[in-house]
Amino acid sequence: MREIEDREAERHKAKMAKRKTVQDAEVADKHVEKGLLIVNTGPGKGKSTAAFGLALRMLGHGRRVGIVQFIKGAWHTGEKDALARFGDQVEWHSMGEGFTWETQDLKRDIAAAERAWQKALDLMADPSFGLVILDELNIALRYDYLDLHTVVTALQARRADLHVVVTGRNAKPQLVEAADLVTEMGQVKHHFSAGVKAQKGVEF
Amino acid sequence: MREIEDREAERHKAKMAKRKTVQDAEVADKHVEKGLLIVNTGPGKGKSTAAFGLALRMLGHGRRVGIVQFIKGAWHTGEKDALARFGDQVEWHSMGEGFTWETQDLKRDIAAAERAWQKALDLMADPSFGLVILDELNIALRYDYLDLHTVVTALQARRADLHVVVTGRNAKPQLVEAADLVTEMGQVKHHFSAGVKAQKGVEF
Repeated sequence: MREIEDREAERHKAKMAKRKTVQDAEVADKHVEKGLLIVNTGPGKGKSTAAFGLALRMLGHGRRVGIVQFIKGAWHTGEKDALARFGDQVEWHSMGEGFTWETQDLKRDIAAAERAWQKALDLMADPSFGLVILDELNIALRYDYLDLHTVVTALQARRADLHVVVTGRNAKPQLVEAADLVTEMGQVKHHFSAGVKAQKGVEF
Repeated sequence: MREIEDREAERHKAKMAKRKTVQDAEVADKHVEKGLLIVNTGPGKGKSTAAFGLALRMLGHGRRVGIVQFIKGAWHTGEKDALARFGDQVEWHSMGEGFTWETQDLKRDIAAAERAWQKALDLMADPSFGLVILDELNIALRYDYLDLHTVVTALQARRADLHVVVTGRNAKPQLVEAADLVTEMGQVKHHFSAGVKAQKGVEF
């Protein structure tokens, strides 16, 4: 028994030693330092939440984080309250008027998106920010509230050390093309379909 | 021209009014309040990051958050530093010994996973926590460091108001079956494949 365990431990060790060689070679191969254009898209949960998680990481490194919400309005969320703890290390701008089916007013939606985009440009131009989150920008692009080419060009022209995260379903192919890191959040299973309502601390 | 714009605005309004009716009916249909078992899995980025984003949300609502890291050891991360800002509202336990290809020692990995699981049980039993994050538990389950049935049974038997997030690739089907909310983070594009190295504030 003891012998079998020892043999298994040996096999595990050899396998993991080999894997470590591969991993180390992969890490050694990467040299470029740059600010990333990150896109979190797809129908699943976690697009904005992961962006706020990144904000946390950046704040821990002492960098400033700017957030522009393109769709959500001034409503109260847990993450906003929590980030208030970081004082002026965080700038939070909720520039939306709510979901399009709430406003039911196309001109108002477009005007709100344009104001939000101007704020995004201001934050991206300010070198004190290490990360700018453009929350639900994909929604504004999907409904053509903003010109796609103008937006993608400005994102590509960002400062070399600035990370930008764009969230929202249905990311445009041109934005995906321009991005460094794209994650598609897929919905495998959702509690709403079991009649469970939006939960404080999970959905808001 | 003005007339066309007006007609378009009218059409938009009618479409969005219809959509609002559907959305409102969907929300009205959901009544259940419960602590959720959430699984973030898949090969893409954002599994742990989204969990930390949820932590932020929960902290904003004044609840306590417990974190057990099953694989990562005591190394320094931005999110850990940032969450330190919340004092004893957060309990962070890095119980891992590092990746399996770093330790190369199966017995040590199993012992570390067992200690981490015991800590997870302690946190889940403590009613002061609103959210417990079991970071990379899926990895420990995948390598059979822990008994799957025991873990899933304990997660299902959690307090009614406790949210638990389990992260890591290759979530076991039995865990997915038991979960309320499962998101698969799919990798569409990754900067590592373009030779860009792990970025401070993004990867750690």
